Amino acid sequence: MNTFGQTLGLTIFGESHGVSIGAVLDGLPAGVAIDWDAVNQEMARRAPGKNKLSTTRSEKDAFEIQSGFFNGHTTGTPLCAMIRNGDQHSQDYDQLRHIMRPGHADYSGKIRYGGFNDYRGGGHFSGRLTAPLVFAGAIASQILASQGVVIGSHILHLADVTDKGFSPLGESTATLQALKGETLPVLDKEQAAKMEERIVAAKNDLDSVGGVIECMVTGLPAGLGDPFFDSVESCISHMMFSVPAVKGIEFGDGFALTGLRGSQANDAFYYDDGVVKTKTNHNGGINGGITNGMPLIFRLAVKPTSSISQSQDTIDTDTQENCQLVIKGRHDPCIVQRAVPVVEAAAAWAILDVWLSAKGRCL
Amino acid sequence: MNTFGQTLGLTIFGESHGVSIGAVLDGLPAGVAIDWDAVNQEMARRAPGKNKLSTTRSEKDAFEIQSGFFNGHTTGTPLCAMIRNGDQHSQDYDQLRHIMRPGHADYSGKIRYGGFNDYRGGGHFSGRLTAPLVFAGAIASQILASQGVVIGSHILHLADVTDKGFSPLGESTATLQALKGETLPVLDKEQAAKMEERIVAAKNDLDSVGGVIECMVTGLPAGLGDPFFDSVESCISHMMFSVPAVKGIEFGDGFALTGLRGSQANDAFYYDDGVVKTKTNHNGGINGGITNGMPLIFRLAVKPTSSISQSQDTIDTDTQENCQLVIKGRHDPCIVQRAVPVVEAAAAWAILDVWLSAKGRCL
Amino acid sequence: MNTFGQTLGLTIFGESHGVSIGAVLDGLPAGVAIDWDAVNQEMARRAPGKNKLSTTRSEKDAFEIQSGFFNGHTTGTPLCAMIRNGDQHSQDYDQLRHIMRPGHADYSGKIRYGGFNDYRGGGHFSGRLTAPLVFAGAIASQILASQGVVIGSHILHLADVTDKGFSPLGESTATLQALKGETLPVLDKEQAAKMEERIVAAKNDLDSVGGVIECMVTGLPAGLGDPFFDSVESCISHMMFSVPAVKGIEFGDGFALTGLRGSQANDAFYYDDGVVKTKTNHNGGINGGITNGMPLIFRLAVKPTSSISQSQDTIDTDTQENCQLVIKGRHDPCIVQRAVPVVEAAAAWAILDVWLSAKGRCL
Amino acid sequence: MNTFGQTLGLTIFGESHGVSIGAVLDGLPAGVAIDWDAVNQEMARRAPGKNKLSTTRSEKDAFEIQSGFFNGHTTGTPLCAMIRNGDQHSQDYDQLRHIMRPGHADYSGKIRYGGFNDYRGGGHFSGRLTAPLVFAGAIASQILASQGVVIGSHILHLADVTDKGFSPLGESTATLQALKGETLPVLDKEQAAKMEERIVAAKNDLDSVGGVIECMVTGLPAGLGDPFFDSVESCISHMMFSVPAVKGIEFGDGFALTGLRGSQANDAFYYDDGVVKTKTNHNGGINGGITNGMPLIFRLAVKPTSSISQSQDTIDTDTQENCQLVIKGRHDPCIVQRAVPVVEAAAAWAILDVWLSAKGRCL
Repeated sequence: MNTFGQTLGLTIFGESHGVSIGAVLDGLPAGVAIDWDAVNQEMARRAPGKNKLSTTRSEKDAFEIQSGFFNGHTTGTPLCAMIRNGDQHSQDYDQLRHIMRPGHADYSGKIRYGGFNDYRGGGHFSGRLTAPLVFAGAIASQILASQGVVIGSHILHLADVTDKGFSPLGESTATLQALKGETLPVLDKEQAAKMEERIVAAKNDLDSVGGVIECMVTGLPAGLGDPFFDSVESCISHMMFSVPAVKGIEFGDGFALTGLRGSQANDAFYYDDGVVKTKTNHNGGINGGITNGMPLIFRLAVKPTSSISQSQDTIDTDTQENCQLVIKGRHDPCIVQRAVPVVEAAAAWAILDVWLSAKGRCL
Repeated sequence: MNTFGQTLGLTIFGESHGVSIGAVLDGLPAGVAIDWDAVNQEMARRAPGKNKLSTTRSEKDAFEIQSGFFNGHTTGTPLCAMIRNGDQHSQDYDQLRHIMRPGHADYSGKIRYGGFNDYRGGGHFSGRLTAPLVFAGAIASQILASQGVVIGSHILHLADVTDKGFSPLGESTATLQALKGETLPVLDKEQAAKMEERIVAAKNDLDSVGGVIECMVTGLPAGLGDPFFDSVESCISHMMFSVPAVKGIEFGDGFALTGLRGSQANDAFYYDDGVVKTKTNHNGGINGGITNGMPLIFRLAVKPTSSISQSQDTIDTDTQENCQLVIKGRHDPCIVQRAVPVVEAAAAWAILDVWLSAKGRCL
Repeated sequence: MNTFGQTLGLTIFGESHGVSIGAVLDGLPAGVAIDWDAVNQEMARRAPGKNKLSTTRSEKDAFEIQSGFFNGHTTGTPLCAMIRNGDQHSQDYDQLRHIMRPGHADYSGKIRYGGFNDYRGGGHFSGRLTAPLVFAGAIASQILASQGVVIGSHILHLADVTDKGFSPLGESTATLQALKGETLPVLDKEQAAKMEERIVAAKNDLDSVGGVIECMVTGLPAGLGDPFFDSVESCISHMMFSVPAVKGIEFGDGFALTGLRGSQANDAFYYDDGVVKTKTNHNGGINGGITNGMPLIFRLAVKPTSSISQSQDTIDTDTQENCQLVIKGRHDPCIVQRAVPVVEAAAAWAILDVWLSAKGRCL
Repeated sequence: MNTFGQTLGLTIFGESHGVSIGAVLDGLPAGVAIDWDAVNQEMARRAPGKNKLSTTRSEKDAFEIQSGFFNGHTTGTPLCAMIRNGDQHSQDYDQLRHIMRPGHADYSGKIRYGGFNDYRGGGHFSGRLTAPLVFAGAIASQILASQGVVIGSHILHLADVTDKGFSPLGESTATLQALKGETLPVLDKEQAAKMEERIVAAKNDLDSVGGVIECMVTGLPAGLGDPFFDSVESCISHMMFSVPAVKGIEFGDGFALTGLRGSQANDAFYYDDGVVKTKTNHNGGINGGITNGMPLIFRLAVKPTSSISQSQDTIDTDTQENCQLVIKGRHDPCIVQRAVPVVEAAAAWAILDVWLSAKGRCL
C-alpha cells in the first residue's frame, strides 16, 4: 500500500498530470513547531527547472497545509499537505497510453492496473511523487534534529567521476549541512565541475547519466531497531527502494565488505572516555540490525534517467507490434542531484519511524 | 516485530541455546500437499557440520510440526514448526555476557534489550534462527513451483574468486535446480575448487571470508508489486536484510547501472511471438517497482563471518574497560555457501507474499 | 493510526474548522466506473441542515477528486478526495480550548495531544470527519453491489420508540434500498412520526436523544473472514467504534442470545434446493468469525448527542476550577438518522476489505 | 491473520487435536520478571474439568516456555509457549468432517478452507485455543499491574439470573482481585447458587445457557488511544470478538445509553483535589475513543454453548442431504464462567498494546 511506517504512517497520493499530489502524515508527535522556511528549502532542492542540469519544466511545488497544524504546532492528528499540479504539457504524453517507454513503469504498470492507470507523465509512477516525500522528510528531519540527529548526503559517483567518500567515523554537522546548499553536493569541490560536464555531455547526446549517493546519519543512539524482519537496514532499504530509479543499497562498506576478511571487517569496540565506540565503521553503524551508536552510512545506486530523447526500440500495445519511440517533452539528463534531498527525506521518515516505534510519544 | 508479510505472516522465535527455535506460518493457502522430503533437503543445505568448509557443530535441525497440517495437506490455519536445540556448548559462551564480540549484535543487542537478552551463542540474533526461515521458504517454494516460479542462486564472488554471472535473460530450470545440489554452487565449476581453497586458507589463518550471492527468480508474471512503498524491490530487500551478515542488495545491474548511460541501461521491449519481452535485462525484471515478466535478479553482499578465532580488541561491559577477546567455540570460516539456501527461502517467502497479496486465495 | 484496512487502506484527515477534510482510498481495484451521483446522494444523506431534525449548519460537503480517477474509472492508485470547510462560526468555539464539554473528547483529546489539538468544533474528533467516511463507503458499496452485496439499515429504536426489526432471514434488496430514501428510515412507517416527535421534543428541551441502528448485509458468500483476531465481527466492530457516538455493537441476536438456551440459539443448517441455509439466523450470518452465507446482521448503540444547549457542570483547565458551560452554536438534537449512512458506509468499507483480503484482485 | 497488536504481536497456533497449541508473544518489554505461579493460576481458572459446571474433559494446560525468557526475566525477543494436547477422544469427532454442528464454525470453516481444515474437536476454531490467549494475557496483566492497572470481571447475567453491576465510578482492587478466586464470580454472592442451579438444569436437559460478563479496568491514565480507527473501543472490541461465543460488546452504559437524553448521558467533569474526574461514568471511561482517566467498563454477550447433547437438525455435506445430529463427547453446559479469565486476558493484551503503542519502551 501507499502508506509507510509502523508508528508513523506516510500516505502519498496523486498523479503527475492530475489535480494535485500530496501526502498525509499520521502519527507525528503533537506540539512540534515546524520551520516552514526550512521545509520550503528542501522542496526547492528537489524542484526541477532551476538550472541547465535539470529539466526546464518548472513545477510548482507550493504545498498547502490542509490539516494537522494549528496555532504554530503540529496537532498530533493527520497532517495533510496538497501540492497542486500545473505547467503540464499533457499532449506531450498522449502516446504513452500505448507506446511503452523502456526503463519506465509504463508496461509493468499497465499490466498491474489492467490498463486503467493514468499514463500521462507516468501518472502515479512519476518522479513528481517524490515531492510529497520530501515534504514529509523535511518535517521528520526537524524532529530528528531536535534530538541531535543529522542527515547529510553527497554524490559519491556520477557517471565516471568519483568524489571522496565520507569518513566512516563521522562527518561534522557543519559538513553535512553545508552539502545541502550545493547543486552538486560533493566533498571534493573539484569533482562538481567534472560531474556537471558529464551531465551536459549526456544532455547534448540526448542521453542521460546515473550515479551513487552516499548518505550519513549522525547522532543516533545505540539500540534502535529490531533483529530480523525489522532490522534498521530492512526498514531503510524498504523505504529507499520506494524512491524511483534506486536499484541498489549497501550499508557500511557493503559489497566491498565481501572482499575483506573477518579480521579486517570487524569493527573493534573501545571505550572513549566512557563512551562505547568502534575503531573502524565497516558495518555502517549497525550490528545485527540494531544501531551501535556509530554513524549510520549507506549508499544508493541511482540509474541513469530512463527518459532520453534518442529514438528507442519498443512496443505499441495497441497494434501489438514493435515500433520506434522518440520521447517528447523535457527531461532531466541526470536525476542524481535531485534525488539527494529525496534520499535524505526518505531516510528521515524511516528513521523517525524506527525512533518513535522504540520511544513512543516519550520523544 | 518478528513477523514478516502482508498477506502471509511468518513469525520466528527462539534463541541459539534455548529450548527450541521455530516458526509460525500464517496465511498459507489451504490444501497444499507438502513434500516434506524436499523441505528436509533444504534444511540440510543450511545445516552446519557437513564438511570441512563449515563449523563442526552438528546442529539437529529436525523440525516437528505442531499444527496447520492435517491429512496430508495444509489446513490454512497457522502452521507451527519447532526445532529443538541440542549439541550446545553453553559454557563456550559464558564470556559473551560482558565481552562484546566485534561484528556481532552483542553490544547493540545489549543496549536494545537493557542487558536482558539471552547472550548464549548470540541468543535470538544467532544465525541458527535462519533454520525456521529455511523451513518457511521451503514450503513457499513448493507453492510457487506449482505456479511455475523457480528460484535459484549461485555464489558470484567468494573472497577474490569470481564465478560467471547468471544470463540476465534467464537460466533454465534445470540449471537453477542443479545448483541446489552443490556444496559451493557455481556456474563455472572450476571456481568451486578455488573458492574452497580460500575458505580453507581463511580457516587456517583463524580468519573468515565473505562473498556475493546472485539469485534469480524465473516464471513470475508481469504486474506483481506496487509503486512506491510496496515495490517488489522494497519487499524483497526488507526481507533480505533480515538475513544475518547481509550488508548490501542490488537488483538487475544494480550499482553497475550507475556507470551506464540511459541509452545503455534501458531495456527495450519487443514482441516475441506475441509475448512481451525485453532485449536486455539491466533492470532485473522490475520497472517502477513492478515485475515486467522478465527474470527477477538480485545480488547480496554477505560479509565475512564475524566469529573468528584470532584475538580481537574489544570491551568488557562489566569492568567498562578495553580488553582482548579470543572467541571460543566452533565457527564457520565462511557462511556464504550456507547463506545460499537461506536467501532462496527468504526470497520465496517474500515473493509468495507479494503474489498472494495480489491474487488472494485465487492461487 | 488513521488508516483502516488490511488490503484496502482508508486514511482520513482534517479538522472541523481547518482548511479541508478528506480521505485517501488506497488499494481500490482498478477499472471501477464510479457513479458519482450515487456518491453525492450518500453524502447528502449524511449532510446536516436539511430539515428541522438536524443542526441548521449547512456544511458544504462537495468533494473534489484529487487523484486516482482517470477517464471515467478508478486507476488502482490512491484516490484522494478533499472536502473544503466552510460556514464555520469559529468564534462559537473559542471557549472549547479550556472549558471541557461533557461527553466529548475535549478533555481526553487534550491530554492525548498535550493540549496541541485543534479544539475548534471538536477539531479532528468532529462528527464532520464522517463525511470522508461516507465518501469512501459510497464507493465501496458500488463495488460490493457489482458482486451482489447489498447493505441497508433502519432505526430500530429512537428514544422510547421502537421500529419492527429486520427479518433475520433476510430483507429484499428493494426494501433495503427504499430505506435509503427516508429521513428517518423505519420499516413500520408509523414509527417515523413518533421518532420525529421525540427529536423535536428533545430539541425544545435543549436536550438530545439517541437510538439503535440495525444494519443488514445480504449477498455475502460463505467463507469470508478468519478465525480469532480477524473474525468478521472483529473487523466490523473495529470499524464501527470509529464512528463517533457508537457505544455498543451486537451481531445476530447479540445480547438477547444470552437469555436463550443452546437448543434455541443454534441455527439449524438445511439444504434448500442444494443451497446451504440456516432455518433461523440468531448468529447473524457469522459462525466462528466466518460468514455462513446467511444475511449479516448487527445493531449499534448510538448515544444521545453530547452537545446540548442546557447549562452543564464541567471544568475550566485554565483556572483549574469547576464551572458551568452553556455550549453555543447549532447542534443536532439527534444524530441517529445522520449516523445511518455513516454506518452503512463504514460497513461497506470494512466488508470490502475482508472481501479483497480473501479474493485479492480477482474480484 | 492470527496475530494481534500494533506494538505487541500475539500469534496463536494449534488445533484441538493436533500435537500442540501455543502462542508467540512478540514485543514484550525486556527485563520483566514473570510470576509463573500467577500465570498458572490464570490457566487453571480457564481449564475445564474442575467441577460439575464444566466439561469432564481434563485438558492438560501445562505450558512449556520455548524462548524469550532467560535468567528469570523476559528477554524482549519473542516468547513462545507450547501446550501439548492430550486426553483427546478423536474418535468422538469423526462425524464432524461431514455433519455440520449448528452454531459452530464447522460449515463456515469448511468453506473458508476448502474442506482442508482440521475438523477434529473444531480444530483451530476450538475454544481450547483460548488457553494460549489466557497465557498471553496473564503476562500482560502482570506488566499492567506494575503500572497500577487492575482488571476484574464478574458474571452480570447468566440465563435469567442477574448479579448487581459494578459501580461505574470504580471498584476497589481488593474487590476485583477477590472475584478471580471464585468459580462463578459475582458481586452478590446469593446469585452464584442460582446461576449454578441454571447450569445444572441446562446440563440435565442436555442443553446449555449463556450470559453477560462485565469487565472493569482501573488505573488507566487519561489520554490513551486514538480518534477514529484506533479508538480504545475499536482495539478492545476487535480483540473481544476473537473470543469464541462473544456476540456483543458495549462500553459504559452501552445500549442503555440510547434510552437516555444527552443531559443524562453526559458525564460532568469536576476537579477532585486537583484530579480530573467525572461525576458519573455512563461513557465507561472513554470519550472520543480515548481514555479519560475513569474506570474503563465493558460488557460482553456470551452465547450459550453451541455443543449440546440433544438431537439437532443439520446437514451432511457428503451426502448433501439434511440429517439429524447428536453430538458425542463431553461438553460445557455453560462456558460463561470459563470465559471470564479469557476476557480478562484478552483485555490485558489489548490494553497493554494500546499502552505500549503510546509509551514505547518507556514503560
